[in-house]
Amino acid sequence: MTQQHINWSEIEPENVYPGITRQVVHGERQTMVRYVYAPGSVFPEHRHPQEQITTILSGEIEFTIAGASRVFRPGDTGVIPGDTPHGARVVGDQTVETINSLSPRRETAPGP
Amino acid sequence: MTQQHINWSEIEPENVYPGITRQVVHGERQTMVRYVYAPGSVFPEHRHPQEQITTILSGEIEFTIAGASRVFRPGDTGVIPGDTPHGARVVGDQTVETINSLSPRRETAPGP
Repeated sequence: MTQQHINWSEIEPENVYPGITRQVVHGERQTMVRYVYAPGSVFPEHRHPQEQITTILSGEIEFTIAGASRVFRPGDTGVIPGDTPHGARVVGDQTVETINSLSPRRETAPGP
Repeated sequence: MTQQHINWSEIEPENVYPGITRQVVHGERQTMVRYVYAPGSVFPEHRHPQEQITTILSGEIEFTIAGASRVFRPGDTGVIPGDTPHGARVVGDQTVETINSLSPRRETAPGP
């Protein structure tokens, strides 16, 4: 059976870009990804077939989705359709934490 | 195209059980649900075909999943396979906020 309890502190973070770490938990139908972005960090534009729903837990981050940019803050969620180009850069001086659900499950490790 | 930005304050909450409100955002493949539980509130055991991944944002809440109970706190995530009985009750005196991704998309309004 799929694991029913995870504390994110138990998941090894991997560095994906300078100042950006990723932790991943797989369900059967979804992959959950926690990103932590240091101030000044940039996640270059990319795309993947999975739909991504991103919720901002702390800090301020500008997402560019299909060419349109907007700052996301705690209380904001973004729905990024599959195969849609998107990237992000931290604005302001706070660390950014996001929780992201990707569906279908991302079988292989996501980018960079 | 699916909506790309939501602030949860824009989504009307619905009361599902005493002290428990729900807000819902649909993607194409996932449904995101934000629950807010008042101290003392109880979400009775139920099940649905969707896999549910629940992340605790504030407070302490006991989940019972397939008969096994455990307290979840901020930093904890639960993966609840589809069709698995689960329920929850707030423990302690803090309001609990959770963000939940269900996949596949939940076409009809979820329970109670």
